[in-house]
Amino acid sequence: MASAIDLQQKIRSAIPLSDEMQFEIVELAENSICVRAPLAPNVNIHGTGFAGSIYSLAVLTGWALVTHITASQNISSELVVSKAEIRYLKPIDGDIVCRCEVTGSEINQFIRYFENKGRSRLRLEIKVGSNQAVLNASYHISL
Amino acid sequence: MASAIDLQQKIRSAIPLSDEMQFEIVELAENSICVRAPLAPNVNIHGTGFAGSIYSLAVLTGWALVTHITASQNISSELVVSKAEIRYLKPIDGDIVCRCEVTGSEINQFIRYFENKGRSRLRLEIKVGSNQAVLNASYHISL
Repeated sequence: MASAIDLQQKIRSAIPLSDEMQFEIVELAENSICVRAPLAPNVNIHGTGFAGSIYSLAVLTGWALVTHITASQNISSELVVSKAEIRYLKPIDGDIVCRCEVTGSEINQFIRYFENKGRSRLRLEIKVGSNQAVLNASYHISL
Repeated sequence: MASAIDLQQKIRSAIPLSDEMQFEIVELAENSICVRAPLAPNVNIHGTGFAGSIYSLAVLTGWALVTHITASQNISSELVVSKAEIRYLKPIDGDIVCRCEVTGSEINQFIRYFENKGRSRLRLEIKVGSNQAVLNASYHISL
């Protein structure tokens, strides 16, 4: 199973924008992840988090978690984001922090479907915030 | 009324990620805009457009158009994106191109509401694609 630093490096070297955003994996467990990026490279015209950076970090959070889970099960596949929605509940004025967690049963269902059909889909909820503030975004990741 | 190049420069100097993305305003008319970014700085791990870049460019497209329209009417306000949804219909393997157009009546309603209430909201549809391929995203921009 790849470490957080290996996965972070893989993403930053393959996706130049994630490197510019200073994408960092803070915690990586079997079924959960926490990701962070500093405000400075991700600021908007109002001095708070740029909507595009917030969204991009949330997408990378979900993508990294599912990549980690599938790699740990030796599944070789192409993960893509199929659709997403996001609501911006309040401005972010510090580090942008995203968390995502899935249950074992969600993962089992996702993997079983993939083994049967050769493709699968997983709906993820990403919590986005800065410090205590939490916003919400949701994503559908396809495999 | 600011020119396309002035607005592009304003955005690129205030939002570092837009500069990294090489955000460019290709056309700017009274009620419409076309925006472009090259693939190289916006690529993902599969060699196609990164979902975060595609979304970010679409958000900037809508934000730039409404900024242009409000500035042309001498309205001073803070424009923010309140919520958005996007569907990725096919991979983008060249320049990322976004178009947005609003009708005069949509703008009039948006401005009138703002003049009465001190705030307003506009729903935008952004067409996203590369060359002929067109995807869709929709955004709600608040003023």
